[in-house]
Amino acid sequence: MRLIYCCSALLLLILLSRTCQGGNILVIPTEGSHWINMDILLQALHSRGHNLTIVRSSKSWYIKDNSTYYSTYTVPVERGLDKEFITRIVSEVMEFERGALPLTSFLHLTVGMFRTFVDAHAAVGEYASAMLGDRALMRKLNDTKFDVVLTDPCWGSGPILAKYLNLPLVYNVRWLIAEEVHLAIAPSPISYIPITGSGLTDKMTFFQRVKNVISYLKNKARKYLIRDVYQKICDKYLGPDKNFFQLMIDADIWLMRVDFVFEFPRPTMPNVVYIGGFQCKPPKPLSQHLEEFVQSSGEHGVIIMSLGTFVNELPADMANEIAAAFAKLPQKVIWSYKGRKPDTLANNTLIVNWMPQNDLLGHPKVKVFVAHGGTNGVQEALYHGVPVVGLPLGFDQYDNLIRLKEKGAAKILSYATVDKDNNFLKAIQEVLTESSYRMNMQRLSRLHRDQPITPMDNALFWIEFVMRHKGAAHLKPASLRMSWYSYHSVDVALFLGGAVLLMLLSTFFLIRCLCNAMCKPKVKCE
Amino acid sequence: MRLIYCCSALLLLILLSRTCQGGNILVIPTEGSHWINMDILLQALHSRGHNLTIVRSSKSWYIKDNSTYYSTYTVPVERGLDKEFITRIVSEVMEFERGALPLTSFLHLTVGMFRTFVDAHAAVGEYASAMLGDRALMRKLNDTKFDVVLTDPCWGSGPILAKYLNLPLVYNVRWLIAEEVHLAIAPSPISYIPITGSGLTDKMTFFQRVKNVISYLKNKARKYLIRDVYQKICDKYLGPDKNFFQLMIDADIWLMRVDFVFEFPRPTMPNVVYIGGFQCKPPKPLSQHLEEFVQSSGEHGVIIMSLGTFVNELPADMANEIAAAFAKLPQKVIWSYKGRKPDTLANNTLIVNWMPQNDLLGHPKVKVFVAHGGTNGVQEALYHGVPVVGLPLGFDQYDNLIRLKEKGAAKILSYATVDKDNNFLKAIQEVLTESSYRMNMQRLSRLHRDQPITPMDNALFWIEFVMRHKGAAHLKPASLRMSWYSYHSVDVALFLGGAVLLMLLSTFFLIRCLCNAMCKPKVKCE
Repeated sequence: MRLIYCCSALLLLILLSRTCQGGNILVIPTEGSHWINMDILLQALHSRGHNLTIVRSSKSWYIKDNSTYYSTYTVPVERGLDKEFITRIVSEVMEFERGALPLTSFLHLTVGMFRTFVDAHAAVGEYASAMLGDRALMRKLNDTKFDVVLTDPCWGSGPILAKYLNLPLVYNVRWLIAEEVHLAIAPSPISYIPITGSGLTDKMTFFQRVKNVISYLKNKARKYLIRDVYQKICDKYLGPDKNFFQLMIDADIWLMRVDFVFEFPRPTMPNVVYIGGFQCKPPKPLSQHLEEFVQSSGEHGVIIMSLGTFVNELPADMANEIAAAFAKLPQKVIWSYKGRKPDTLANNTLIVNWMPQNDLLGHPKVKVFVAHGGTNGVQEALYHGVPVVGLPLGFDQYDNLIRLKEKGAAKILSYATVDKDNNFLKAIQEVLTESSYRMNMQRLSRLHRDQPITPMDNALFWIEFVMRHKGAAHLKPASLRMSWYSYHSVDVALFLGGAVLLMLLSTFFLIRCLCNAMCKPKVKCE
Repeated sequence: MRLIYCCSALLLLILLSRTCQGGNILVIPTEGSHWINMDILLQALHSRGHNLTIVRSSKSWYIKDNSTYYSTYTVPVERGLDKEFITRIVSEVMEFERGALPLTSFLHLTVGMFRTFVDAHAAVGEYASAMLGDRALMRKLNDTKFDVVLTDPCWGSGPILAKYLNLPLVYNVRWLIAEEVHLAIAPSPISYIPITGSGLTDKMTFFQRVKNVISYLKNKARKYLIRDVYQKICDKYLGPDKNFFQLMIDADIWLMRVDFVFEFPRPTMPNVVYIGGFQCKPPKPLSQHLEEFVQSSGEHGVIIMSLGTFVNELPADMANEIAAAFAKLPQKVIWSYKGRKPDTLANNTLIVNWMPQNDLLGHPKVKVFVAHGGTNGVQEALYHGVPVVGLPLGFDQYDNLIRLKEKGAAKILSYATVDKDNNFLKAIQEVLTESSYRMNMQRLSRLHRDQPITPMDNALFWIEFVMRHKGAAHLKPASLRMSWYSYHSVDVALFLGGAVLLMLLSTFFLIRCLCNAMCKPKVKCE
């Protein structure tokens, strides 16, 4: 069945590529792992004949200057989300996650993380200001006659630029600036929709639902912390009546990097297109060296480990504990790690600077994936059906992993206890020996792959749909143009409540009047 | 572009049909126009090698006994939704729609219509009881090992049977028994979602929103009028803890017979698949006789008119007025009508018993479609880009037409005034001469046809998906298993409200205690 869909998708692609007339796409990407998957989409768009222009900050870390398939405009900025900035965030989060802190340290770190969050958005705000303030750049962008803006709204600069240039807008998105996407655009009963960071699932006890409401309020507060950064830019460049949060949710198409094999089912909107796993593809053969190492594992198979783009190094004690655990296993291990070589490293473990993660996950010898839980890695594991031992650092990582755990396809560890009581070893052994983990993940993989068209074709179709029709206004709900009190029917409730009250009072007074009249027949009722 | 998608869909279908292993599908269809489109889906499923078994009532009107592509079980019943019953409903609705009634007649008709609505469901309830009570039939159905139940939940019998047989469930659906589908399964802010029958759109004034809330409450009340009919059957055959309304919304996949080119954008759910226009196809050549008639219209073109499955006859004065209006036009007219030939009929109007509606709508000479606004006809007009003059009778017809009117592609008339002041003639002339009607409808047609796979392929894919995976539990929200107070967080709100109140009171008493202690230092605070 899978083969058939692959064939038909290929035919669709061949047929499409024959007649596709290239358009002009303006891209405002985001750094880090967000860039990694945006880049995959850009390469696919380029191969379909589109011209890609990227606007980036001079502090861009991952997004390189001109490439063979896109051209860039670089906006000079004083500060940005460069390597130092992101390394600072990661170390703060790791310190926080290692936890078991006294209250003062906990509060200190929490306040620090809030400050870093606001700082990051302030830096993006400066970049957005510099970009919109650059008249020559704006003139060039206006003259190019772009068909669409493609951006990741994890930061606020892309949507503002799209509105400034009055262009149709497509999001390649997992998170909005400070909240989960559905929560911002679809009515989302928080009685069964867990808030990001709450560590909850879609099945909650009473007290978990209480915690979820508190998490919801905390996130709302955090969102309003950064409102001013972007609102000021909107006021200056788009006119005084443009509300930043309304503008953020006014995209034509939302290409969501999840699907409902992974995500808990929840209300959605007509212009949300699910492209989870669009970056996944069948494995290519491994290099000879790696293939030999993998084959040497025999019947025991291989464990692979990667903690993502940002975690280059672990505290020495933790790295030693992990290496020692691996040493006790009959499996071979491939560990993507840039830190100092752990003292306890055994012969069965190969440390590499980088590994072909997708090709390894698709290798039949690979039994377990030790991952941090970033969206890209989790989707790749799901696509290839490899169960996960998760070591989430922060951000959305725990939330990603708990979605697999709930379906019996992952085991989650925490930084606070990973190096205690053989927790790491026990977790790996459990996932290796209990066959349910692998069976569940392979069931998810079958469900995920059974789609009428591939997620990548779906993404390309909808970007080009917006280009062909100059937007997708017919998919945007009328609620985007409503005030909050109209949307929530506050005025109608007050009106109808008032009317009912008036009727009750009138009836009451009428009855009283009648009673008076009947009891005192000689006194006229006024 | 359209050609490319047609080609790729064809290839997808060819590839799929080569390997599709036929399954067993149990179908519980609904009468009338609902059967017409279910039948199209059944023919497509049959051509893909599936075995189709239909359960029907002995009073079935449209659903014939065994055919070449399905077998039937017929359940004997005393009464059912036969021709007489439906003719009675139609005449009641028409009398109501002709309107301008004194209050007593209005109330009399309203009560009559409510009674007919309850009567219809009582008849379906009797059918469901007879079906489930037939042990031999249930044994046969159980023994057949069906893969899925396919039903139209416009009536309640299909979902109950699916639950009784414990089979996966797919809906081919436009309306639930007493409400719009989204309203029953997705959180739907009625501040911008018009209630069926309210005559409103997604852009409402304050007083329209008030009217919408009242319509919402009226529909809720109507829904509970028929609850008992089905709940009793559930209690008897499924056990005492099966809530009928919860069971109704527990389908695996909802194949919705609309899309968002037609429907106002609104919140939806992951297991809703939009197949609006799945029954539409490119036109076949007309018969020689009809083609000659159409060609004889010259540059003026042709108007076609059909008031659907149930309206066979109009009141004589109205039919005369319509025929007289047609007589004044330079166009040729094809009118599907079974009533007495109007006295005013002119040579330019051809009255037929039946017409090849899809082929005519796809003919370049056809300029206007005079329609009652049933979902099938409206979707066909949209697919072919032919603007509509609507004469809605009741049910969902006004709601269908207002969706086209809002997009500038239709003009709506009412039975109450269609035969007055040349209204009919004026409406036709307006739609013929104002080019915006045709341009808007053709824009909708372009949007509707621009889909990654055809609606029919989508429908087939998801039915077979449910068969392959024995359901689609991963797409069902957790809310299906929640009580109303948990879902609406009533308990959490009370708890948090109580907690806040307690904190405020404690603070207040503490402050009072402190004040007392400070003001009266010698009196000890107890």
